[in-house]
Amino acid sequence: MNAIQFGLIGAGTIGRVHAQNIANHPQASLRWVVDNDRSRGETLAMAHGAAWFASLDDALTDKPVQAVVIASSTNVHEEHLLSCVRAGKAILCEKPIADGLDRAKACLDAARAAGVAAAIGFNRRLDVHHRAVYDRVRSGEIGPVETLHIVSRSSRSAAPEAAHRAGGMLREKGTHFYDLAFWMAGSEPVEIYAAGGCLFDQGYAAFGDVDTAALTLRFESGALATFSFSRRTAYGYDEMIEVFGAQGMLQSKRQRQRGVALYKGSNVIEDGMHAGWYERFAPTYVAQLDVFVAAVRDGGPVAADLADGMRAQAVAEAAIESVVQRKPIVIANIWRKQ
Amino acid sequence: MNAIQFGLIGAGTIGRVHAQNIANHPQASLRWVVDNDRSRGETLAMAHGAAWFASLDDALTDKPVQAVVIASSTNVHEEHLLSCVRAGKAILCEKPIADGLDRAKACLDAARAAGVAAAIGFNRRLDVHHRAVYDRVRSGEIGPVETLHIVSRSSRSAAPEAAHRAGGMLREKGTHFYDLAFWMAGSEPVEIYAAGGCLFDQGYAAFGDVDTAALTLRFESGALATFSFSRRTAYGYDEMIEVFGAQGMLQSKRQRQRGVALYKGSNVIEDGMHAGWYERFAPTYVAQLDVFVAAVRDGGPVAADLADGMRAQAVAEAAIESVVQRKPIVIANIWRKQ
Amino acid sequence: MNAIQFGLIGAGTIGRVHAQNIANHPQASLRWVVDNDRSRGETLAMAHGAAWFASLDDALTDKPVQAVVIASSTNVHEEHLLSCVRAGKAILCEKPIADGLDRAKACLDAARAAGVAAAIGFNRRLDVHHRAVYDRVRSGEIGPVETLHIVSRSSRSAAPEAAHRAGGMLREKGTHFYDLAFWMAGSEPVEIYAAGGCLFDQGYAAFGDVDTAALTLRFESGALATFSFSRRTAYGYDEMIEVFGAQGMLQSKRQRQRGVALYKGSNVIEDGMHAGWYERFAPTYVAQLDVFVAAVRDGGPVAADLADGMRAQAVAEAAIESVVQRKPIVIANIWRKQ
Amino acid sequence: MNAIQFGLIGAGTIGRVHAQNIANHPQASLRWVVDNDRSRGETLAMAHGAAWFASLDDALTDKPVQAVVIASSTNVHEEHLLSCVRAGKAILCEKPIADGLDRAKACLDAARAAGVAAAIGFNRRLDVHHRAVYDRVRSGEIGPVETLHIVSRSSRSAAPEAAHRAGGMLREKGTHFYDLAFWMAGSEPVEIYAAGGCLFDQGYAAFGDVDTAALTLRFESGALATFSFSRRTAYGYDEMIEVFGAQGMLQSKRQRQRGVALYKGSNVIEDGMHAGWYERFAPTYVAQLDVFVAAVRDGGPVAADLADGMRAQAVAEAAIESVVQRKPIVIANIWRKQ
Repeated sequence: MNAIQFGLIGAGTIGRVHAQNIANHPQASLRWVVDNDRSRGETLAMAHGAAWFASLDDALTDKPVQAVVIASSTNVHEEHLLSCVRAGKAILCEKPIADGLDRAKACLDAARAAGVAAAIGFNRRLDVHHRAVYDRVRSGEIGPVETLHIVSRSSRSAAPEAAHRAGGMLREKGTHFYDLAFWMAGSEPVEIYAAGGCLFDQGYAAFGDVDTAALTLRFESGALATFSFSRRTAYGYDEMIEVFGAQGMLQSKRQRQRGVALYKGSNVIEDGMHAGWYERFAPTYVAQLDVFVAAVRDGGPVAADLADGMRAQAVAEAAIESVVQRKPIVIANIWRKQ
Repeated sequence: MNAIQFGLIGAGTIGRVHAQNIANHPQASLRWVVDNDRSRGETLAMAHGAAWFASLDDALTDKPVQAVVIASSTNVHEEHLLSCVRAGKAILCEKPIADGLDRAKACLDAARAAGVAAAIGFNRRLDVHHRAVYDRVRSGEIGPVETLHIVSRSSRSAAPEAAHRAGGMLREKGTHFYDLAFWMAGSEPVEIYAAGGCLFDQGYAAFGDVDTAALTLRFESGALATFSFSRRTAYGYDEMIEVFGAQGMLQSKRQRQRGVALYKGSNVIEDGMHAGWYERFAPTYVAQLDVFVAAVRDGGPVAADLADGMRAQAVAEAAIESVVQRKPIVIANIWRKQ
Repeated sequence: MNAIQFGLIGAGTIGRVHAQNIANHPQASLRWVVDNDRSRGETLAMAHGAAWFASLDDALTDKPVQAVVIASSTNVHEEHLLSCVRAGKAILCEKPIADGLDRAKACLDAARAAGVAAAIGFNRRLDVHHRAVYDRVRSGEIGPVETLHIVSRSSRSAAPEAAHRAGGMLREKGTHFYDLAFWMAGSEPVEIYAAGGCLFDQGYAAFGDVDTAALTLRFESGALATFSFSRRTAYGYDEMIEVFGAQGMLQSKRQRQRGVALYKGSNVIEDGMHAGWYERFAPTYVAQLDVFVAAVRDGGPVAADLADGMRAQAVAEAAIESVVQRKPIVIANIWRKQ
Repeated sequence: MNAIQFGLIGAGTIGRVHAQNIANHPQASLRWVVDNDRSRGETLAMAHGAAWFASLDDALTDKPVQAVVIASSTNVHEEHLLSCVRAGKAILCEKPIADGLDRAKACLDAARAAGVAAAIGFNRRLDVHHRAVYDRVRSGEIGPVETLHIVSRSSRSAAPEAAHRAGGMLREKGTHFYDLAFWMAGSEPVEIYAAGGCLFDQGYAAFGDVDTAALTLRFESGALATFSFSRRTAYGYDEMIEVFGAQGMLQSKRQRQRGVALYKGSNVIEDGMHAGWYERFAPTYVAQLDVFVAAVRDGGPVAADLADGMRAQAVAEAAIESVVQRKPIVIANIWRKQ
């Protein structure tokens, strides 16, 4: 069975993760890397026996490549995604789809029209803990979902300008969690209220961004989800999900990096949380690639598709508007197929 | 040292708790109980060697009584509190102060003018777990407070009409937690957004009440508090506080009723939460009375005073308005001394 | 209903606990305290409106007293217990019964012959956590018991000579836990191996005592119990029970003094264990007295009787012999009724 | 850099684990598999592009192989190990070294005389949790070690005859944990008492084996280690280490297979333990191979050497003798270099 040939756009942090996982996958191989920074692009390509291109158009002339991972900055996702769609490649695109609703919609429409397999990088759906909660909630174990509470606090954050290029906190971080909430609630989002501010670094404000936010999302079913986001903690990466239903509550608990405890003085001092999101979620990128490879090969479903990405993006855009207007915003329902 | 003589208004559930605690306190004794339901009033009075009165005015002619606990329905708090103030009694009033802002303000103003000691029943400030978190947060251990998350979910709820008489969820339950949030954040509340609904019992809607709510409170400091409330759980009484600051996070964790675990099959099955709020918080009523007795005797501070009650009430009234208007509401700042 | 009149022998630490609990109990009152240290005896007696006696014989002429709590040093338990038996009083005796097997047997035989109610102070049977485990184990929830592991490590220990007077670690501490093991295993003890030593204070060795021990107890059923004892920890009082059966494992978990957690740096720092055994087990003394009062009043069973004390004592004596002989010792079965 | 060529003896469960890990390792490759069961030997060899041999002597004529993993039955370890030593191969041998003290000593002496790198498969030393405890204990964080408690209970056990071939519980399971105890205590073992029995399957008794055991090991330092072993649980694989020292206690806690909790009724139901030892310890085999590859390549130390294996074996043989004689047995100190 021949390995699926991959192209990769973007040789930054997350691009390097994808490159390594493609290289390790028994049914995938990395053929080229596109990055306009020659140094890092070529280094990554060479490490995996792949070619480096500065230009995506040049790379896309390489016929054997069936699938492309888009791991470039959010503000160029649209351009890259549309090019890949035109070239007929299967796509695994990092979230968010784009840095605005219209651009994201253009991507979704193009991919739908072309009929290419297009996945959005909602890797947290592949986390074994989150997924176990999802399976049990959707199977009805706790009855109808009434409220959800999701925490995501980063241990360290990008500087304001880089964070802005990535889409801003309510888009870049947020889309992961709006998606998880929808996925677990099993109902469509209708309205969001976002209260945010710059509590520790005013630099984000210059880009219309926040470093801290508390959001409330209302679903069609009446269920309510709350989100607590921060750009930095003093204790590592912090993620937790709590789903409260009529017949019980399920938690995907905070994870500890090790199971070690010290009893000393008046305390029990346990090894704490993972240093960062990658230490916590590295296995989910492998699992996500695995599902994507199977989808490309066998035509099966991806873990999350562009419509899922579009739904989360619509929530993000409403959340951003809510911060500006300081009131709840109705979410544009533009992700469903007409 | 003579015991302080107490009067008690209200022989319902919480009235009986106060009566028992007064009877057990080495420096307090119960002299009368007022309740217009003769049967329950007289039964409670007799159990503690006290007199029963149908009328508060009659009871207040009894000079030796120095202090009165008001444990009647919220909708008659104002009447009872004003009578006690006029009679010059020290007051420990169950929360909320009243079922509306003006009525609560009248109580606060009258008590201030008369100079009587007046405590509000925010017993959770006396919980040893919450208090330890408070002490450590206020001492600066986690730096400036950025966000708080408070969960309070009742294991069983009053029927809609009784719940309405008690003030409704956002007043009766809510005031406890708005107060805890303010107390820990160390900043005044300025705006609240409350998303609520009847997710399991539409009966509450007839009284303008909700059974489920998610609230976001903004403080002067910029800190944000979120609250998750429900009128029933499938797993006992659920309360938890999380305070996130620049230098760490402190939690007052969910409590378990017992420290027992069963390892069986693919699970570890631990003894769960307390059956109800009383099982969880019984000791706080004893501690609250102890502080109040000391305040009456020695003129020291009460654990929480009517101004604290007024602040929480102002938040509650804004929260109720927010549910109606479906937008954030600015909190009337009427609790501070002019 | 008249309160039961109590006498108390011993005004030391544990004597003061009993005095306070008797004073607080609605159906008990303290009539006299015997202690040959006039200062502490009289102080304790006066605090509860009781009389002080230097001599037990004098005190026992006081007819209204129905029940006596023996809280003197272990080395005078026999003398005190036999006097109380002769006077026909109901007895609640602190453990161990005596500091040797013959003396303990003499106590048991005398109490049996006289037919007086005689309880041994195995208060841990009244701990709600331990008791829940016991109830579930005995109900068959985990099937036949195969192994038990019991930890008891004191946060601070008596000096060697005082510890010796109290019976030594394997008697004074040990009897509590041999009893719990028997109680939960539901089988009689047959052989014990005790490996002990002075790992931090050679002073205990001068009295034939140890500061650290690991014991293995074999039951008639074949079940095995291990015990880990220490005279001091660097982290408060440490007690834990684990019962492993054919169909599951039940734990009475380590308790924490408060439910507070701090997330900071690479750790989660939780509030630790209770400062000492009393902070952990204070409620069990109240519960034990309650059962004893009911037994005296109504003739019901005590929580643990002298035969239970005798069984644990027989294990203790064998354990002490095992340390000397460095091999397992068969336990003299002298606690059963012939 | 050329990969190190490996041979593998034994295509059973653990042999397949080693084969897969060698195949995945970037600096190792599998050249042959020896197993006298042609079907399973050839299948495993083919899966990794290796050759199959029925005879070890034939295989050892293959010069490029530098290192051999011995994963055959314990009762043929000696024969296989001596052959590999004679052939000058580096060796990674599964524990225990042999099924008797003399045979194990012969292996150790031969390997020492030949000067080949020889590792024993004490993979638990590579567990990140255990290792973190080890590092902190050895760095002095809890002061001198006074007691250790180690639990290892298998979720399912081999049938009596197969278990006997593997060495019996006190050898096959035991050597892992005697080694961990020594490793953490930092002191040599001097005496052991083992109380064991067949509590659920008398079939083991026919082979002089037990299904349940409680052991007490005394170290030169005076420290005491207790072990609780069982051949089956009703709740998955159960392993836990507790190290108690003068200045604190460190635990390598029981691990859970997932971080999911359900709050329902009067319980909190958490996802439990791993199904078996392999699910819990799979990563340690990878880590162990990594250390071994580096040792073969660079001449560095192995994670545990044959002398470590010999020490644990000496403890095992004394433990087996202790069960027979029902008394503590002095451990033959034959692992140190003369």
